[in-house]
Amino acid sequence: MSKLNFACDYLEGAHPAILRRLLETNLVKTDGYGEDEYSESAREKIRVACEAPQAEIHFLVGGTQANATVIDGLLRRWQGVLAAETGHIATHEAGAVEAGGHKVLTLPQHNGKLMASDVKAALDSWKNDDNRDHMVMPGMVYISQPTESGTLYSLAELEVLSAVCREAGVFLYADGARLAYALVCPENDVTLPDLARLCDAFYIGGTKCGALFGEAVVFPKPGIAPHFFTLVKQHGALLAKGRIAGLQFETLFTDDLYGQIGQTAIAAASRIRATLWDKGYTLVMENPTNQIFVLLDKEQYTRLTSRAILSFWEQPDPEHTVMRIATSWATTDDDVDALIACL
Amino acid sequence: MSKLNFACDYLEGAHPAILRRLLETNLVKTDGYGEDEYSESAREKIRVACEAPQAEIHFLVGGTQANATVIDGLLRRWQGVLAAETGHIATHEAGAVEAGGHKVLTLPQHNGKLMASDVKAALDSWKNDDNRDHMVMPGMVYISQPTESGTLYSLAELEVLSAVCREAGVFLYADGARLAYALVCPENDVTLPDLARLCDAFYIGGTKCGALFGEAVVFPKPGIAPHFFTLVKQHGALLAKGRIAGLQFETLFTDDLYGQIGQTAIAAASRIRATLWDKGYTLVMENPTNQIFVLLDKEQYTRLTSRAILSFWEQPDPEHTVMRIATSWATTDDDVDALIACL
Amino acid sequence: MSKLNFACDYLEGAHPAILRRLLETNLVKTDGYGEDEYSESAREKIRVACEAPQAEIHFLVGGTQANATVIDGLLRRWQGVLAAETGHIATHEAGAVEAGGHKVLTLPQHNGKLMASDVKAALDSWKNDDNRDHMVMPGMVYISQPTESGTLYSLAELEVLSAVCREAGVFLYADGARLAYALVCPENDVTLPDLARLCDAFYIGGTKCGALFGEAVVFPKPGIAPHFFTLVKQHGALLAKGRIAGLQFETLFTDDLYGQIGQTAIAAASRIRATLWDKGYTLVMENPTNQIFVLLDKEQYTRLTSRAILSFWEQPDPEHTVMRIATSWATTDDDVDALIACL
Amino acid sequence: MSKLNFACDYLEGAHPAILRRLLETNLVKTDGYGEDEYSESAREKIRVACEAPQAEIHFLVGGTQANATVIDGLLRRWQGVLAAETGHIATHEAGAVEAGGHKVLTLPQHNGKLMASDVKAALDSWKNDDNRDHMVMPGMVYISQPTESGTLYSLAELEVLSAVCREAGVFLYADGARLAYALVCPENDVTLPDLARLCDAFYIGGTKCGALFGEAVVFPKPGIAPHFFTLVKQHGALLAKGRIAGLQFETLFTDDLYGQIGQTAIAAASRIRATLWDKGYTLVMENPTNQIFVLLDKEQYTRLTSRAILSFWEQPDPEHTVMRIATSWATTDDDVDALIACL
Repeated sequence: MSKLNFACDYLEGAHPAILRRLLETNLVKTDGYGEDEYSESAREKIRVACEAPQAEIHFLVGGTQANATVIDGLLRRWQGVLAAETGHIATHEAGAVEAGGHKVLTLPQHNGKLMASDVKAALDSWKNDDNRDHMVMPGMVYISQPTESGTLYSLAELEVLSAVCREAGVFLYADGARLAYALVCPENDVTLPDLARLCDAFYIGGTKCGALFGEAVVFPKPGIAPHFFTLVKQHGALLAKGRIAGLQFETLFTDDLYGQIGQTAIAAASRIRATLWDKGYTLVMENPTNQIFVLLDKEQYTRLTSRAILSFWEQPDPEHTVMRIATSWATTDDDVDALIACL
Repeated sequence: MSKLNFACDYLEGAHPAILRRLLETNLVKTDGYGEDEYSESAREKIRVACEAPQAEIHFLVGGTQANATVIDGLLRRWQGVLAAETGHIATHEAGAVEAGGHKVLTLPQHNGKLMASDVKAALDSWKNDDNRDHMVMPGMVYISQPTESGTLYSLAELEVLSAVCREAGVFLYADGARLAYALVCPENDVTLPDLARLCDAFYIGGTKCGALFGEAVVFPKPGIAPHFFTLVKQHGALLAKGRIAGLQFETLFTDDLYGQIGQTAIAAASRIRATLWDKGYTLVMENPTNQIFVLLDKEQYTRLTSRAILSFWEQPDPEHTVMRIATSWATTDDDVDALIACL
Repeated sequence: MSKLNFACDYLEGAHPAILRRLLETNLVKTDGYGEDEYSESAREKIRVACEAPQAEIHFLVGGTQANATVIDGLLRRWQGVLAAETGHIATHEAGAVEAGGHKVLTLPQHNGKLMASDVKAALDSWKNDDNRDHMVMPGMVYISQPTESGTLYSLAELEVLSAVCREAGVFLYADGARLAYALVCPENDVTLPDLARLCDAFYIGGTKCGALFGEAVVFPKPGIAPHFFTLVKQHGALLAKGRIAGLQFETLFTDDLYGQIGQTAIAAASRIRATLWDKGYTLVMENPTNQIFVLLDKEQYTRLTSRAILSFWEQPDPEHTVMRIATSWATTDDDVDALIACL
Repeated sequence: MSKLNFACDYLEGAHPAILRRLLETNLVKTDGYGEDEYSESAREKIRVACEAPQAEIHFLVGGTQANATVIDGLLRRWQGVLAAETGHIATHEAGAVEAGGHKVLTLPQHNGKLMASDVKAALDSWKNDDNRDHMVMPGMVYISQPTESGTLYSLAELEVLSAVCREAGVFLYADGARLAYALVCPENDVTLPDLARLCDAFYIGGTKCGALFGEAVVFPKPGIAPHFFTLVKQHGALLAKGRIAGLQFETLFTDDLYGQIGQTAIAAASRIRATLWDKGYTLVMENPTNQIFVLLDKEQYTRLTSRAILSFWEQPDPEHTVMRIATSWATTDDDVDALIACL
């Protein structure tokens, strides 16, 4: 019997509905570079979902690429981007933002999140520093929703953060690599229209939410990132067969497939999380989304990892290990039952 | 009746065999980032096809990305890359190479190709210039096979070019965006093993040769591009679901599908080309691959473009237009018959 | 007897008036980074000389640095700069512009100059190209006055070039590394106020015109290059003791020292040029400034280079060599007499 | 009566001996770009002082430039540089290192210094992280001697740090902007030969140690930074009149002028520091070099700043301000007496 696998949320190919649409449309001839009918339809559906009828939308292949290209598109050369020290751009993107010439200005994380007061203090500090012209000017705030720790910004938190950014004239940008898993959480009160209203840019994740690949970059107000198409090309991020990305997002935003995908994962995570609580496990990060971070002693570690593939997160002391359990659109009830049986 | 479409070789989705394999493997769980079994199998098949058992192979999403990442990986900061003035990196990549900090040093094109003697002269000229330390040092030669004009380097030409590069200690890199269409041409005498033997790096094109997307970067000798994986990540070119790219190349290199794809396109192009010759059309670039560049007078232009979508290439004078006709793996005999009927 | 030396125009230290002022002011304590009284006075004098009372002026150390920083400050990431194929940024700046991420888009040179019609054609070509969004957008035109060949743009030529740029919305930038030698030529009709009126940016050269080092970057209209101070710092081009650069330009623009410096060099060059004509030498580039390009046969070459150090320029055929003779503010009548005696 | 000025150590022009040499040599004609006799003599004197007879030495204009160019010259694209969070490259260089594509990886500072154990932990952490190929690889450790807080690495500390770096195969680079003030401190036990033995690169500061400008970059072992001359040019950091920088360093390293310059400053700082201790002032950073950081209450602040210009450092609470007092080669006994009289 093969091992269970809860290592991450991109273990499989794509949601079957996406493959079905790829098959159906395969021999249709279209224009390239995202100027096809599927991409245009996907854009229109996303505009509706975001209640942002003027939004500019670009489909890029991956998250690091989307982050680096958006940051490049919105910042000027003398500007940097504020991020939590645990932000993906600050840790696991191989220096892509710096390779584009911009400094990532890190701030402390609080459950994976930036605090608006820290952001305001950093912006004020730069503004009030007599040496500010010798320093990198903060030009953007980067957040993730959900965060790399699986936590969520509340609407109230996002409103304050957005107000701080707008007062200071810096952009607010949200990385939504796992956005599907945020949107459907009962604990979540931040909708797509909220993101569109409060952020200057964000991306709706596809790769980790059921697509083969793809992220939809949304600029709610048009004109904010001039010549972004060319910048996408310059970053090597422009698909010749743009339709493949567009079609996937068209599918995700038809009949709320994106919501269903989120719900499958969250339902699975909730069942696992409840059992962990019941059995007295320690969850190191309280969060409601599809990633569970559980502290295991040696016996628990050996038992669980002999039956299921989990992700190593960190080893706080020689006796304990934190492992990540991730669910996805593809997690089945049987998988969850089997994992619960091991706990 | 809808129009015929010969605008380019990436009008459709993917070769059906690729979609079939995506479906078959969709729910298999694999590691990410190209460390899955399909990617590994694809690498092995490509190594065999190239007779390069030690080759390092990376799957990237697109051509501009592959070019920018390889050039970044092989050059040092003070080096630039020699290319024909018509080379893709010099014209239609939105400055991606320069965005990575490297100058594209252009040389005259001869039917879309670099002449080894021009390359040697440029390398000698730099070497013998007293001001060479104030200049960009040529560190690589970039060629395309087939070229942007559809022409082919002969084996003899490639041997000389390779010898010139090796003598000077500069890398030779071949962009194979349309390599499938070169390999099967009766006029072609450059095989994959030849490329692996004579080049320091090249990529085998997928996007324009039947895949949804994807290019296989091949370093025939291992170790030439240290930490290339990290560089791919930094360029935003690393697929989380690397399997999707790997699986496509595994399919392309099973039962010589890559060769079949090329043959379909070349057979179609040959029939069209023969008819054009017969009917007295002027072909502006003699070439044997899947792109045909035909000079049309006003009457011909109007007649053809009313029935078929072709690509505008250039307008040498007000009375004439050069249009490109491209065939692909997906071009049917019926399409060709219908086009020929319009000529 | 030591050899004469006409190799270049930066053989000595600085004009004695500059050293005198350095001595006089040496122990005065001032603010750093160009915020001192000498720099401010220099700026005011340059504004007056340029009849540009609002001009923003920054003192940078050298020409490559000035070019790279100005280009970075005015262009966006997706833009490149048009230049003559012989332009300094295209040849002898070690790829500094590309290292900053921008492509140098070269055009043919005509006596070292760009033709406005070529520039217009290039701008139109980009604008009319269906693939323009896959290409580098021209955002600036770079010229040198005098050019690398010692030639001059006439006022009429500059007016047309400026009109072409303004119509297309691209910046016009002039590299004035040897500007002192242009301004005083009888053949010249382009004044500093003309440059300020017709260009968006230019620099007044110090290094090659009598200063120890230093170039004064002038933005005639303020606000065109926001946060340029920070960009100068980021380029490593900000002097802690900014006064040293400022004081030099204050001296150069007091009692028309800059004009005198130019006149000394031009008078010397004119005498040498006249003698060369008289004696039947071939001048390969007709130009009125301080650089003379003379074609020498073997006998002439041996005779001259045994007595004077000249610069090698090129070897058009095995029997002939083009050498450059350069004069400067420091060329004496005795030097000229001695050189003439060898001709 | 004008105010005293202890704001920084670059308030004046240059040490008179430097101006004297500029005058003496002004009309000598030399080659450009640092290939003159003064630069070569300066290199030889520095090699002797460092007991590094093979050292490669380049004269650059300023500190930010030196840092950015050295880091670019030694790192590969996928590498970053470890630095204290207070390191100059991490704070006051306007993102120059990131503009060159490299991430500054910050570590906690301890009195302005890096701890070898923190460095080792960071290097091990990268090495042991399963995700290291998605992260920036540390390729260099950057330190300042003295640090930005005026503190010094001891020889023992530097030995350990160097051993940690060599074991891990990363470069150790020391920023010596104020090195003159370290070398002569009685508390200092790190000599130039120690730096040459323990570091892979360092620079000897001129700008803040008596020169008009200039920093001498030293690579103790030749060949470590190939084509560095071209990289210097590419960074806009190559002086046409390289002799001006070379001559200054030749003067600084003749008859131990560099040592004398340090001693003047340290003697002045020691007298001020002793008086501050005597009078019960709080020094916020115990350090032996030419920068004194003193905590002032409101009365002290008003009294001192009415008579002397000091640098604002920080305001830890509304009642107190930390000000910096800096001495230099140009600080006179009278200045010190006058300042002491105000304390």
